Amino acid sequence: MNVYPAPLNRLIKNLSRLPGIGEKTAERLAMHLLRAPQAEGMELASSIGELKQKIRFCSRCFALSDAELCGICRDPSRDPGVLCVVESPADMVAVEKSGAYTGLYHVLHGLLSPMDGIDPEDLRIQELLVRVEKGGIREVILATGTSLEGEATASYLSENLSKYPVNITRIAAGVPMGGDLKYVDQVTLKKAMEARHAV
Amino acid sequence: MNVYPAPLNRLIKNLSRLPGIGEKTAERLAMHLLRAPQAEGMELASSIGELKQKIRFCSRCFALSDAELCGICRDPSRDPGVLCVVESPADMVAVEKSGAYTGLYHVLHGLLSPMDGIDPEDLRIQELLVRVEKGGIREVILATGTSLEGEATASYLSENLSKYPVNITRIAAGVPMGGDLKYVDQVTLKKAMEARHAV
Repeated sequence: MNVYPAPLNRLIKNLSRLPGIGEKTAERLAMHLLRAPQAEGMELASSIGELKQKIRFCSRCFALSDAELCGICRDPSRDPGVLCVVESPADMVAVEKSGAYTGLYHVLHGLLSPMDGIDPEDLRIQELLVRVEKGGIREVILATGTSLEGEATASYLSENLSKYPVNITRIAAGVPMGGDLKYVDQVTLKKAMEARHAV
Repeated sequence: MNVYPAPLNRLIKNLSRLPGIGEKTAERLAMHLLRAPQAEGMELASSIGELKQKIRFCSRCFALSDAELCGICRDPSRDPGVLCVVESPADMVAVEKSGAYTGLYHVLHGLLSPMDGIDPEDLRIQELLVRVEKGGIREVILATGTSLEGEATASYLSENLSKYPVNITRIAAGVPMGGDLKYVDQVTLKKAMEARHAV
């Protein structure tokens, strides 16, 4: 369909490559950018262009960073004695947004999945063991997800960390807040019953 | 929330300015661009950057174009004796995609709306009259929408074009194809009844 002039077609094609953006949405976004002030488009283009050049992984925790160490590793108010181990930068952001955590992180960049050929050496596990071995860490919170791979990764880490003098904890599984019991799946409900506590 | 490094925050902020893109979607898109190959991001950035520089209005029909005349005005296989008058470039695209039209267009870039202060001189109406006055046009199809403003614009144009020797037609209003009568609004159904034809 050659209804649009070439530069517009090119932009629509590029936008529709983004996840969750279909051709209709790409058309709408392109039309918006066409009507928007020149500066808005330029600012968007330059922020996309600079992204890959400016973002790297924190050399200590492997979070996304714009410097050698990420903002959290650099922050003197964070407790360096606690490590929260997560699958991805997005999971780290989720924990940060909860506001419930003031320690440091360790981003694995994946979960163990032998079926998909993802072994311990494909993740940042060795780097985690080195961090713990160096000492100064009281607690390692295993905050991988509660999927099969998340659980498997947590138990692998738990096993490999057991030789160090640290407390190893796992985030709690249970009924999500605001959750209606009749819509909660059986496995979650079983976990929630098992982990019941006195009030 | 300063969870992301600055360049990522900047991109998320810019993406969430786009229509229909909330903060969550902007985060997801930014994360995708971060993981995607460098070339994909660069290609997207450059297509956004070039858009405004390369797109202008066709000097004859005011459609979007990358040259003095748009692709349709340049196409010798299109019938120059028929003009389809539409509100916007997006409407023109919709008519083109229907595949039902082989003539030329005239894009008004708006609809008359005295309430919002949009008068005939704010639209490309004068240019339409000049095109018709020049001659060589047999039919002008008024293909503005069936909203109040669309109808008002169509009757204004019809009145002003009546002095020229051209057939003035209006796109048909009626029940949309695939439409279930019980879900069609009363005004549409009334129009459809009035415009009934022998089979």
